[in-house]
Amino acid sequence: MQKNKIRIGIVGGTGYTGVELLRLLAIHPHAELACITSRGEAGQRVSDMFPSLRGYVDLPFSDPAQADLKSCDVVFFATPNGIAMQQARELLDAGVRVIDLAADFRIKDVQTWEKWYGMTHACPDLVAEAVYGLPEVNRAAIAGARLIANPGCYPTAVQLGFLPLIKAGVVDTGSLIADTKSGVSGAGRKAEIPTLFAEAGDNFKAYGVAGHRHLPEIRQGLGLMNGNPVGLTFVPHLTPLIRGIHATLYARMARDVDLQQLFEQHYVSERFVDVLPSGAHPETRSVRGSNQCRIAVHRPQGGDTVVVLSVIDNLVKGAAGQAVQNMNIMFGFAETTGLEVVPLLP
Amino acid sequence: MQKNKIRIGIVGGTGYTGVELLRLLAIHPHAELACITSRGEAGQRVSDMFPSLRGYVDLPFSDPAQADLKSCDVVFFATPNGIAMQQARELLDAGVRVIDLAADFRIKDVQTWEKWYGMTHACPDLVAEAVYGLPEVNRAAIAGARLIANPGCYPTAVQLGFLPLIKAGVVDTGSLIADTKSGVSGAGRKAEIPTLFAEAGDNFKAYGVAGHRHLPEIRQGLGLMNGNPVGLTFVPHLTPLIRGIHATLYARMARDVDLQQLFEQHYVSERFVDVLPSGAHPETRSVRGSNQCRIAVHRPQGGDTVVVLSVIDNLVKGAAGQAVQNMNIMFGFAETTGLEVVPLLP
Amino acid sequence: MQKNKIRIGIVGGTGYTGVELLRLLAIHPHAELACITSRGEAGQRVSDMFPSLRGYVDLPFSDPAQADLKSCDVVFFATPNGIAMQQARELLDAGVRVIDLAADFRIKDVQTWEKWYGMTHACPDLVAEAVYGLPEVNRAAIAGARLIANPGCYPTAVQLGFLPLIKAGVVDTGSLIADTKSGVSGAGRKAEIPTLFAEAGDNFKAYGVAGHRHLPEIRQGLGLMNGNPVGLTFVPHLTPLIRGIHATLYARMARDVDLQQLFEQHYVSERFVDVLPSGAHPETRSVRGSNQCRIAVHRPQGGDTVVVLSVIDNLVKGAAGQAVQNMNIMFGFAETTGLEVVPLLP
Amino acid sequence: MQKNKIRIGIVGGTGYTGVELLRLLAIHPHAELACITSRGEAGQRVSDMFPSLRGYVDLPFSDPAQADLKSCDVVFFATPNGIAMQQARELLDAGVRVIDLAADFRIKDVQTWEKWYGMTHACPDLVAEAVYGLPEVNRAAIAGARLIANPGCYPTAVQLGFLPLIKAGVVDTGSLIADTKSGVSGAGRKAEIPTLFAEAGDNFKAYGVAGHRHLPEIRQGLGLMNGNPVGLTFVPHLTPLIRGIHATLYARMARDVDLQQLFEQHYVSERFVDVLPSGAHPETRSVRGSNQCRIAVHRPQGGDTVVVLSVIDNLVKGAAGQAVQNMNIMFGFAETTGLEVVPLLP
Repeated sequence: MQKNKIRIGIVGGTGYTGVELLRLLAIHPHAELACITSRGEAGQRVSDMFPSLRGYVDLPFSDPAQADLKSCDVVFFATPNGIAMQQARELLDAGVRVIDLAADFRIKDVQTWEKWYGMTHACPDLVAEAVYGLPEVNRAAIAGARLIANPGCYPTAVQLGFLPLIKAGVVDTGSLIADTKSGVSGAGRKAEIPTLFAEAGDNFKAYGVAGHRHLPEIRQGLGLMNGNPVGLTFVPHLTPLIRGIHATLYARMARDVDLQQLFEQHYVSERFVDVLPSGAHPETRSVRGSNQCRIAVHRPQGGDTVVVLSVIDNLVKGAAGQAVQNMNIMFGFAETTGLEVVPLLP
Repeated sequence: MQKNKIRIGIVGGTGYTGVELLRLLAIHPHAELACITSRGEAGQRVSDMFPSLRGYVDLPFSDPAQADLKSCDVVFFATPNGIAMQQARELLDAGVRVIDLAADFRIKDVQTWEKWYGMTHACPDLVAEAVYGLPEVNRAAIAGARLIANPGCYPTAVQLGFLPLIKAGVVDTGSLIADTKSGVSGAGRKAEIPTLFAEAGDNFKAYGVAGHRHLPEIRQGLGLMNGNPVGLTFVPHLTPLIRGIHATLYARMARDVDLQQLFEQHYVSERFVDVLPSGAHPETRSVRGSNQCRIAVHRPQGGDTVVVLSVIDNLVKGAAGQAVQNMNIMFGFAETTGLEVVPLLP
Repeated sequence: MQKNKIRIGIVGGTGYTGVELLRLLAIHPHAELACITSRGEAGQRVSDMFPSLRGYVDLPFSDPAQADLKSCDVVFFATPNGIAMQQARELLDAGVRVIDLAADFRIKDVQTWEKWYGMTHACPDLVAEAVYGLPEVNRAAIAGARLIANPGCYPTAVQLGFLPLIKAGVVDTGSLIADTKSGVSGAGRKAEIPTLFAEAGDNFKAYGVAGHRHLPEIRQGLGLMNGNPVGLTFVPHLTPLIRGIHATLYARMARDVDLQQLFEQHYVSERFVDVLPSGAHPETRSVRGSNQCRIAVHRPQGGDTVVVLSVIDNLVKGAAGQAVQNMNIMFGFAETTGLEVVPLLP
Repeated sequence: MQKNKIRIGIVGGTGYTGVELLRLLAIHPHAELACITSRGEAGQRVSDMFPSLRGYVDLPFSDPAQADLKSCDVVFFATPNGIAMQQARELLDAGVRVIDLAADFRIKDVQTWEKWYGMTHACPDLVAEAVYGLPEVNRAAIAGARLIANPGCYPTAVQLGFLPLIKAGVVDTGSLIADTKSGVSGAGRKAEIPTLFAEAGDNFKAYGVAGHRHLPEIRQGLGLMNGNPVGLTFVPHLTPLIRGIHATLYARMARDVDLQQLFEQHYVSERFVDVLPSGAHPETRSVRGSNQCRIAVHRPQGGDTVVVLSVIDNLVKGAAGQAVQNMNIMFGFAETTGLEVVPLLP
């Protein structure tokens, strides 16, 4: 049975996904912000650190050691990788639902996870239980889940772009290419030189071409859609914008099909995936601040290469917004509750 | 008596203030978008031009000549200067309220207006009737107005910053300085070379030092607060951000006073003016997308110069948001209706 | 025999390639700027329009109709497409060398050119004579040329990236992919809405996926390298930086080879192509303001897809710098003369 | 007597002023880069950290403890505050000239310095000896100096803007205002959250209004020009550009004068100060990458407030370029040697 208000805890409220959760939950009609933790900022008012929240969030940060997270209905982990796996079991045992915005529960193969993330997993059994929180793929399982692995930003944009092609079996899944571009907020609110304004501004570069942590996550997702492993080349780039991911996806057609119709039909019932008219080029700003994914599909010069363009706001559909969408599904709220934010353009 | 839904017309929906009105009104619970005109784009769907509005605004642009604006309860003019004055009388005569986001009705002295705007005014009598729509100064008059002159962006930031000082009579009003910085959207969605990305990006400059149209508007407003003309030096600058105005205001103290207390008390009841704690420096991004004005007041080294820092989003509190705030007041809605947008940070 | 100073004319000096030519030629030891034309700005001093040139360029713009271009040794056309083809013959007949920075002479198949550029070509015979000015491919022909077709920006970055692979015959040339990203200056100094700061800033998008004018130019160049037509998917994107192109190139390996060694050996003698160490990711800012192309080659996870990253400054190696490089070759100057500009970082 | 090549050491080559020194000195005809130190990066090639220098700088970073700085003719300190004062004496005793780009020797009153910089000064006697390296004020003293205190970036822009007014005695020096805006590179290449792209991008704010370290430096300089202390309000702002400072200066006229003529005459012989024509607004990009300061002077509406607009590139005329200019003067080279860099626009 549905409560009108659920008590919400956020572990790690000082990063970009944390403040984005606060932006969305502050005006969510069924959300009661009970607790926001930060080891470094305990005692400080959240709105002193983020003045954008003045008038909306009155809480101070709590010391994680003293926070009463167990009295919450749901706890979001907006923490670095490796934190949620330490604390999830205790919360789940106390009947609290957990949504991890980091990567602790995303990869089902624990060995693969340990290789890419460079640590030993604290609770492999919970990995098995966790539901990968991509509603457009796993909605039913999310509704019944105790523990959600919220997808990464690149994986969200890439999987939603390839999904109709792979499900319909119309492309060669042995040589997929995902050329992806991310705004700088994707790197988090961490003091590091490469993401300084004077480094990342007026500059464009690829990174992680030899291997990026989102590669196994995307491969796993596409493989599940496909029923078989896929071949994928994944090249991420850093682009001088604050928010936004643009995925440009390439696949070889295996059989002829009306691509526009395929995409439109696949997503006809999805509120947060918007298939643009034929010939369109989605802009990242058209989803800025919103939970929308916008997609266009092209077949240049009528050749055998299909090009999919997929954009999201990495902090919303690629993180906090999708987490709230998952929360809505888990607690039986309308899926769009609190997510009716018109994108900010310009 | 208050209607639940009012019919709204927008003249000139293709500029930045137009699309910003649409962003806000699309989710305003008492707004029914009846008509959006554009001479150049008649017939095109609004959301084809602004895909951010897909799913929120289904209307096409109407031809201004055929639009049934007289059946609206209120019409917003998001047009270049000189348009609203041509059409306002007919609408007012039909019982429609008018809110002009351009400058046609802002300057009470028609000769001054004609000098700065380079045209003959079409309806000086309506200038006399129009209410200057700065709610923090004119709330009561706005409530009863038929015709609102919505303030300019710089004038909003500057007047709200100087207001407590002038009303309290604590500064020398003969030599005020307003050093103001605006994001590029302030120049509008017009094809012009100086506001190209490759011109305005990674660049900073002053402009209009010899005289800017907002100077007489600010002088008029400050003079009314003061009961006497003021001396003002106004220097606008263009800064490479999309949205945001930062006004840095300087005045000489005429008598000693607790400035922090003065500002806090002056604005204690104002929902959209937020006085920051002593020592703070408001950032433009802390109001991005919202109708908030944030202000801090300083007295460096305890000297006799007071420095006020005032930030707004030029498209919201400096244009469309303030227009909606005025509409709310005129129609008896709660002043914050439809304006509870948490700023987008980062 | 080499002159110490050559007289230089520039037709169309008010665009970005024009001002960039001036930046480079102003300090070129063998260049004497004789004449810079502009229909719209005739009489105005060049440095009044571009204050960055104050102290370096003292000329006014000349009226094209009155300019004594025939007394020049070389004339650069930094004009829109379709201008150079009207004036080239007369200059060539007068013994003047011509370097066209636009596209008039780039495509050997005149029908193809006419289809993509939407006009009838004025002098197909000169197309046949023109030498495509990519020195790393055509150096000898450039040395003897009267008329140079200076390559486009995307074509330069893409061709230099694919060249070693195609020449060595190590990739499947039937399904090449070029995912390219350009700074906004690539669109020129034209008053257009899509390149406004408030449109292109904090935004990322693809464009021209259905077909871009640089596609036939790249196809022609790669086909010539290959000795046979190639299959190419070309997707350009607009990214919020002022200068810079980043090409991410994908090809299927046809036979095994040491890619790093292949690239290093291919470009060992090229001063303006810099092959980075294995594993590197070139940044656009590492070539900002310079005539350098920097390239890295990857084979992610040891698979059969090769990924080449190629960056240039679109206004230098992608336009004005390459034009000066061509001029140096044509007149027997050291190829690097006037091009020893250390990139501006940050 | 002048050497053709001087041996140059740079202490602290990994920050923005360090890499900027390298950019300029790499092509300086009289400079031989002998040694570049970095504690953290010893052994790494400089051009691996800064690929923009590939082909121009072949040195590795040296360990400061082992670097043979005493064999240099001049050593630049591009270090944090407090380093140069530890090492200057030993170098000076060995006959090496020292140019400190940090603040150790800028403030003559050691107590004031210690208060603002929060440390005890290691060599007050050298403070007394040091020459403040603003050539437009101190050229003769610089020529004979062993130890140069290279000015701060804000102080350079502000002092050059006020200098003609103060020297001519035409303004009230009791209430000067300097409203200054800086690009983000002014904060240095340090891993700190407030200068991240996602924090400083698309954002504008004041900072340090209560007191900034450049305040006493500017006050000292203006006081020396004036022959008496001045009253100064100094408000710095952070603006989203990489390089550039824009100072907007306000002063009350004390007596009437032709301001344009005053400025033009004052700077008639200065190669690196460019007084723009009457009515102009200098842009920061018009000096990007160059050692130029461009200035315009206004008297809005003919009132009694003079407004001076002064722009520099903070890393060049505000740091490394001015340091090279000082070096040129000290060693008898032409003052512009190695500094003939045309600004990069766009």
